[in-house]
Amino acid sequence: MESRSIRLAVIPGDGIGTEVVAEGLKVLEAVGPKFDLTHYDLGADRYARTGEVLPDSVLQELRGYDAILLGAVGDPRKVPPGLLERDLLLRIRFEFDHYVNLRPVKLLPGVETPLADTPAENIDIVVVREGTESLYAGTGGAMRKGTPYEVATQESINTAYGVERVVRFAFAKAQTRPRKKLTLVHKTNVLTFAGDLWQRTFDRVAEEYPEVTTDYVHIDAATMFFVSQPERFDVIVTDNLFGDIITDLGAAVAGGIGLAASGNINPEGAAPSMFEPVHGSAPDIAGQNKADPTATILSVAMLLDHLGLNQEAARVEQAVADDIVERLAGWGSRTTHEIGDDIAARVSG
Amino acid sequence: MESRSIRLAVIPGDGIGTEVVAEGLKVLEAVGPKFDLTHYDLGADRYARTGEVLPDSVLQELRGYDAILLGAVGDPRKVPPGLLERDLLLRIRFEFDHYVNLRPVKLLPGVETPLADTPAENIDIVVVREGTESLYAGTGGAMRKGTPYEVATQESINTAYGVERVVRFAFAKAQTRPRKKLTLVHKTNVLTFAGDLWQRTFDRVAEEYPEVTTDYVHIDAATMFFVSQPERFDVIVTDNLFGDIITDLGAAVAGGIGLAASGNINPEGAAPSMFEPVHGSAPDIAGQNKADPTATILSVAMLLDHLGLNQEAARVEQAVADDIVERLAGWGSRTTHEIGDDIAARVSG
Ligand SMILES: CC(C)[C@H](C(=O)O)[C@@H](O)C(=O)O
Ligand SMILES: CC(C)[C@H](C(=O)O)[C@@H](O)C(=O)O
Repeated sequence: MESRSIRLAVIPGDGIGTEVVAEGLKVLEAVGPKFDLTHYDLGADRYARTGEVLPDSVLQELRGYDAILLGAVGDPRKVPPGLLERDLLLRIRFEFDHYVNLRPVKLLPGVETPLADTPAENIDIVVVREGTESLYAGTGGAMRKGTPYEVATQESINTAYGVERVVRFAFAKAQTRPRKKLTLVHKTNVLTFAGDLWQRTFDRVAEEYPEVTTDYVHIDAATMFFVSQPERFDVIVTDNLFGDIITDLGAAVAGGIGLAASGNINPEGAAPSMFEPVHGSAPDIAGQNKADPTATILSVAMLLDHLGLNQEAARVEQAVADDIVERLAGWGSRTTHEIGDDIAARVSG
Repeated sequence: MESRSIRLAVIPGDGIGTEVVAEGLKVLEAVGPKFDLTHYDLGADRYARTGEVLPDSVLQELRGYDAILLGAVGDPRKVPPGLLERDLLLRIRFEFDHYVNLRPVKLLPGVETPLADTPAENIDIVVVREGTESLYAGTGGAMRKGTPYEVATQESINTAYGVERVVRFAFAKAQTRPRKKLTLVHKTNVLTFAGDLWQRTFDRVAEEYPEVTTDYVHIDAATMFFVSQPERFDVIVTDNLFGDIITDLGAAVAGGIGLAASGNINPEGAAPSMFEPVHGSAPDIAGQNKADPTATILSVAMLLDHLGLNQEAARVEQAVADDIVERLAGWGSRTTHEIGDDIAARVSG
């Protein structure tokens, strides 16, 4: 166990973000190692109050932490749609070069999946989503806006540098898994320039990993296989947009967005990595103590793992798994706090 | 019923394409109206033999038909991946300005869906996919190719002209449906320029359709709803790429790619529309008389409908629905021919 305390920046954000982060921190405290927490009030309230989203000074400060825990941002009553997502969430991902967006898609035993006849072991996928390129570059524009002759463009920018590093991460990850299988998901038959770069890079790096079985699936077919043959996948590497789509679908088949965790990772540690549930701020159920904090708690496990606290991460994961089996055994529905308390008790007990 | 005969160009293509088209034509013959058929041997064989994909003269000839029926193209042993898809399939879609790619996602009673506890009536969606713009424009490029400094781009091009016409088609379609609901699917929070054009156009046209309920869902969330709440959707309008992805997922939830039909439509009739199953040429099962021709037969129904032969279209659809109920009643597995024969018999009987 580490002896110096770990510096963690906490951005609860909006809506259920603040509620689920509170439970995540409860579990973090229960698991042992000392964390120095600093809360940042970024999100819709701050924007409504001050017009600020992410001041440069705050971004600079965030750089100094060992990691960031984020809840969710966005509130349609206080801020235009998309603004916080872009200027806060995506800005941090880009500024901190979170080129690996790591999203496990794993059906835990006892969790209900919308797929018929699917044993839990059939859904155990890790999606390595590229986090800094492709259509997320934000480049493009509109000309003759508002006229019948308007042209609006978006550009997908892909670099050898950006593709190779995430592909390497994915191969290394596949190498550590029992099945050692890596699937590239793209749309090479239509996105020929970008697809060609991805495919060539993938094939070249594959030569260094002779034990890893490789495969290629188009994004359209991949969505089909996610529901008809999820066992086809072990590790997936894909671009930012396709990764966005496939991980939401993955969350749905693995029991819902209430359980889906993610890490925005800078593997070299050049900047802090950021962990967050895949779900949003859900204004419709905010403040009702009924959001499921499990996705955040699993994101805390990813955070622990990233910081090298592997045993602690494993304890949190085990506590979640055990908690879910109990849910099966017929517990009534619990509040956000109760779920957090129950998992925290398992972790420390 | 029409009295002059209808001129139909038939492109069976490769692999199971030829097998399923034969059954589609069997049903077309059984349904009554006289069709003048001309077969075109386009596809992998022609390419392997002559290096030709779609000669300009053939494209010109195709313009003269009332409609086109296509099976599937592609054969990895004879032609580089993606080549026929782009230079034949997408080329026809673009040259004939098939700006509506119409794809029903409907669970027929008796068909098994991979989704648990989903009554057939919950999955009854029509996807109106734009067919000529966005990332399918094919523009982009690569610089410093093959070096560590390579940059590969793809451009999504969207025009007011292109977006408005497909949005109008979708509103008109929604207006004819009992639920009268239209959902725009896009990724407006990230693809801000294109998304803004789509959203503004959608909102503007909506004013002309006060009876149509409108909704917006991000593509990532839409994939989730396709498996968790498909009843949320009635008609969907979306761009070319998102439509590609969501309709494959739709095919999977509505019982598989063996049943998914599509129409590439030029609503003004400025060029012939083309009907095709969503599935590919499936080289692995080609020549074994075991492909399901139902998707092609349902594409024939769409073709009849497009030509104004609505009663004939309805008869084909009914025959397929009845055939599927029989499958439920425990028929053994039938060959491609047998399924075609059975449905043709129902249509003429
Ligand atoms: C909120 C949005 C910008 C974000 C994305 O598209 O990456 C979200 O969908 C996600 O997956 O984290
Ligand atoms: C073959 C391919 C180019 C095509 C597409 O992407 O449109 C196919 O997936 C489809 O959906 O018809």
